[in-house]
This record gives sequence, C-alpha cells and structure tokens, in this order.
Amino acid sequence: MSEPVDEFDWIARLLRPLTRGAPEAFDLLDDAALIPEIDEANQIVVTSDCLVEGVHFLASDRPDMVARKLLRVNLSDLAAKGAVPFGYLMTVAWPRDADWRRRQMFAKGLATDQGAFGLSLLGGDTVSTPGPWTLSATMMGRVDPGGMVRRGGGKPGDLLVVSGMIGDGWLGLKALQGEFTEPDSYLVRRYQLPEPRLGWRVALRHASAAADVSDGLLADAGHIATASGCGLEIELERLPLSPAAARWLERQEDQAGARIALATGGDDYEIVCAVAPQALEAFQAEVGAVPATVVGRLTEGEQTTRFQGEVVTPDRLGWSH
Amino acid sequence: MSEPVDEFDWIARLLRPLTRGAPEAFDLLDDAALIPEIDEANQIVVTSDCLVEGVHFLASDRPDMVARKLLRVNLSDLAAKGAVPFGYLMTVAWPRDADWRRRQMFAKGLATDQGAFGLSLLGGDTVSTPGPWTLSATMMGRVDPGGMVRRGGGKPGDLLVVSGMIGDGWLGLKALQGEFTEPDSYLVRRYQLPEPRLGWRVALRHASAAADVSDGLLADAGHIATASGCGLEIELERLPLSPAAARWLERQEDQAGARIALATGGDDYEIVCAVAPQALEAFQAEVGAVPATVVGRLTEGEQTTRFQGEVVTPDRLGWSH
Repeated sequence: MSEPVDEFDWIARLLRPLTRGAPEAFDLLDDAALIPEIDEANQIVVTSDCLVEGVHFLASDRPDMVARKLLRVNLSDLAAKGAVPFGYLMTVAWPRDADWRRRQMFAKGLATDQGAFGLSLLGGDTVSTPGPWTLSATMMGRVDPGGMVRRGGGKPGDLLVVSGMIGDGWLGLKALQGEFTEPDSYLVRRYQLPEPRLGWRVALRHASAAADVSDGLLADAGHIATASGCGLEIELERLPLSPAAARWLERQEDQAGARIALATGGDDYEIVCAVAPQALEAFQAEVGAVPATVVGRLTEGEQTTRFQGEVVTPDRLGWSH
Repeated sequence: MSEPVDEFDWIARLLRPLTRGAPEAFDLLDDAALIPEIDEANQIVVTSDCLVEGVHFLASDRPDMVARKLLRVNLSDLAAKGAVPFGYLMTVAWPRDADWRRRQMFAKGLATDQGAFGLSLLGGDTVSTPGPWTLSATMMGRVDPGGMVRRGGGKPGDLLVVSGMIGDGWLGLKALQGEFTEPDSYLVRRYQLPEPRLGWRVALRHASAAADVSDGLLADAGHIATASGCGLEIELERLPLSPAAARWLERQEDQAGARIALATGGDDYEIVCAVAPQALEAFQAEVGAVPATVVGRLTEGEQTTRFQGEVVTPDRLGWSH
C-alpha cells in the first residue's frame, strides 16, 4: 500500500489506541491534552505543534516571524481551551547553512512574543538537518479546576460563534505566493503572525465547546459537532470578513465557491465555539475588542453548509497536511 | 557571519536568556526541566528530544526501531533525573512517501515500548515534509517532592559512577556504516535500541548529581563538573566495556586514542553520576543488575582525562550535533 495516507485516518487508527490509559488525551480529538498525574487544583493544558519550512511557512519568511508563528500556533490551541499559557519546550532542526544572524533573529522573535504573552522557555533540543528548517513547540498553560473548554459538550441548538475574521490567513499565503497583489500587506501579516485569542478566556466560560480554527472553519466547526455528537449548519453569508478579504471576494465570479475557499483555507487561528442561545448575551459581554460573529448552529441533523439558503457541498472541509 | 555555529554557544547566548523568570528551566544546563506553576507535591520533570533521519538514525533503520529510539532517548533523560515516566506528546514530520505500512510499523514500535515503560501518548502533531523524516517527543515523569537529581550538586571528592557499558552505541553506528563487521549485531542493537536506566531511580537518591550520557561520557561528566563548580579526573582504563567493544579495542593500534573515541562517541544513553565515597555502598546496593563502574572523581582542579597515569587531551569532548 503506497497510496497517500490520510492524516486523520492514521491518527484515528494507529495513534488513538496509543492513548489508552490516559483519558487526559481525549482520544486525540481535542486541541490539547491535560497533564495526567497532577491533582485537580493544578490542572495544566498541553499541546504540541510543528512547523516545516515550505509547508507551514515560506523560506523567504523572516526568522523572527517564524519564531513568533511557532509560539502563536501553539498559543491559539491554548486560547481555545481557556488556558493561561506560561511556558514551552522547543525543538529546532536547523539546516546546515543556518548562520548566527538567522538564529539571532529567531531568538529575538521568541523574546518579543515571550514578553507579549508572559512565557518562559523551559527546555528542548537543537539539532541539525540536511532538510528544511523544522520546529516544534510544546506549550503549557494553566486552567482552573475543570476549566478546560472541550471540543465535545455542544448541544443541538447551540449557536456557532467565531472570533475575529475568517480567510485572511489563507489569502495572505496566496498574496505571498504572488496570486494577487495587496498594497498594504494586511493579509500577509495575518498569515505570518496569527493573533491567538487569549482574551476570550473569560467569555469561553459561557461556551459549551470550543476549538482552534487552524484547519479551516468548516473542518474545525465540524470537529466540535462530531465530538459533541451533533450536526451543524453554517451559513456562508455570515462569514466575518476583513475589508481586504471582502475586496478579494468582490472580484470572484463564483461567490459560493469563493466563500467555501475562505471557510476551508485554514491558517485562521481564530476560535470557533458553541454557545447556548440563553448564554449568548453573557458570552458577548466578555469578548472585548475581538468581534464575535454567529455563523451557524449545532443541529440534530447532518453537517450542512448553506449559501443564500441553498445547500452547497465543499469538495473538502479543510486543509489536510 | 556564515561560519558554522557552535550549538552550545547558541544555547548559552541566545536561548538561555529566554528562560529568565523560570528557575525550573535550570538555565538549560540540565537534562530536563521541572514544570512550573505546580505545587511541590506534584512535581513533574519534562524533556524534549528530536531525531532526524540521516543524523540520529539511518534511513535503513526499521520504523518500529526508530519509534522505540525516540521514546528511549527521552526516557534516558528522565532516568538520569530519578523520574518515573508516564506519558508523552509527539510531533512527526513524515516524508511524502511514508506509506501506511511504514506508519503501522512505527505505531507498533511505540506500542511495544509504551507497554514496556508504562507510557501513554497524550497528544501532538503530524505533518508532512519535503525533507527527511523528523520526530520529536516531549516526555513527562513524576518525581517525589525535591526528588529530581540535578547536574549541579556534586562536590570535590565525589566518585564518578557510570551505568552499563560505554562506547557500544558509537561502535554500533560504525558497524552499521560498514566500518567493521560484527557477526551477532550486539553493537548495532545497542545503537538502535538504547536501554534507559530507569532502574537506577532508587540508587540515584544516594547520588549528589547525575546526567544522561548522550553526547559522550567525557562531555556529559564534564557537564556535571561544570554545573557543580568542580573539576574532574577520568581514568580511561576504567571505562566499562562490553565484550564486543573490548574485541574492537584489541584491534586498535592507538589504545589511548581508541579509548578517547569510545568516551566521546556518544549515543550511550547511560547515566553518569557523582556519589560521595561514604554513600557508595548504599548506592551500589540499589543499582540492581546494571553494572555500576567508578570511572573517576570530581576534583577542585581542571577537567582532566588520564590513561595509564598520563594526561591525554581529547580533540573534542563529545559529539556536537
């Protein structure tokens, strides 16, 4: 069998059995795990994400931006779980030509975001590689006892609420790849420097379920629905779009297809969560400056995407690495 | 500046400042960190190690052996700290041609060693790479309050004791690379499948300092000496050698040079520790079946290596990746 392997399949069939004995791994269906063997007064949420040059960032990206992206993609997972991050371990495989200046810029980027997010480096490993620059971080954050917001826990009727703007990261990558020009580089910055929504921690106490949006909104909202044993309906005309994304959308002929692209492109690093209608007001009172947009709801049926009332069927739900 | 970067230099000058605020990172001078923000009754030791195909293992190595090596190099760090491992997160960057069978064998190797060492997979990330297979794991283990054995803590006069056999891993790599033939593959197995010395946990309560031997005995004993503010003397004729390593040594012309090679080759995954002379008996009563060999002592002087009474000066103290 040398056909391409589906990543979800290998996780479900080969890795999930390896979590037996650790309910804290949540069957690998969540954004993060809890550390076992600690009493409940000290709950710690932990997540590992990996970045590869040419896959998750471009060779032309500045090393300090890569460092900040490494921290931020991990922080985004913790943000979606309602955790307060405090530290991380990191492994870096450097290409043989990675000189002092590149490492210095990389460390400067780490320092910048450590300051911004209150983090300390705790340990890790540094090696050389004949291949592309490859980095991983294991990020830890505290939650109050029982305070981790899970992907499961949503109920039919809950509203699906998303933070910030959807599609900017995917468009930023396309702009970097030269598919269109963008005078002020807003979308490129959104791709290179995700904004983990840690400010939603208090609001998320009013949510029944939450996930980080990294694979694409449809995929990650689907993860909430699946983990919660629900269906969902998403209305594509409700997607929150930045002015730059709205301008790109205006130029597209197939409006439904373009909106599907924005909702499946990935690299958003927003939060999608399920909020019971009666909890929405309390939720919205705590979201602060980051917009909260209702894009659909959990149902008792299938996972359905609509545009102007019509059901549309995306080819794929999100970006599969 | 595009000259090669010294890994210790980049860790010391660029990464160490990033641990400020977290004394639990021990200035990146130890094998592992303690997780901050947990009360002392729940102390957890954490370490991350990374393996790259072509650097830390060979493309021809069986995927299940690579999986087990990934766990074992991390377990070896925890063993040297006196911790009881319980779980890990893992990131895997798969080459595009990594088919189902390869992943299946890899997962089987993880399962084998999870059973052997009482581990659960807790989470992680799986991505694709255009480069070599690259893996990292973040391993966690419990220690009793204050029970983590540090690299610092040794005193002049303490004996340097090493577990098991030194040089097998390095010789195994040479055998795999065809530099000599080895009929029974003992050395190759020692390279491919390190044996973390978790059984030394109780003995290490009698040690003043300890480190994992992965960079090479002289380098890692030197790390203990440096962290403890001591010098050291190592006597190369005392190196514990397996019968296979002894046979290789017999064939070498330069006996001092060959012993230096064994003591600097790395990939041993043994423990080196400092034990006060009056604690040696209690220490040795707890080491079980794994041999404990005194190879030298901490001093008030320099770091010195001797062979048959003469001071020898290695070109390098160990393997720098």
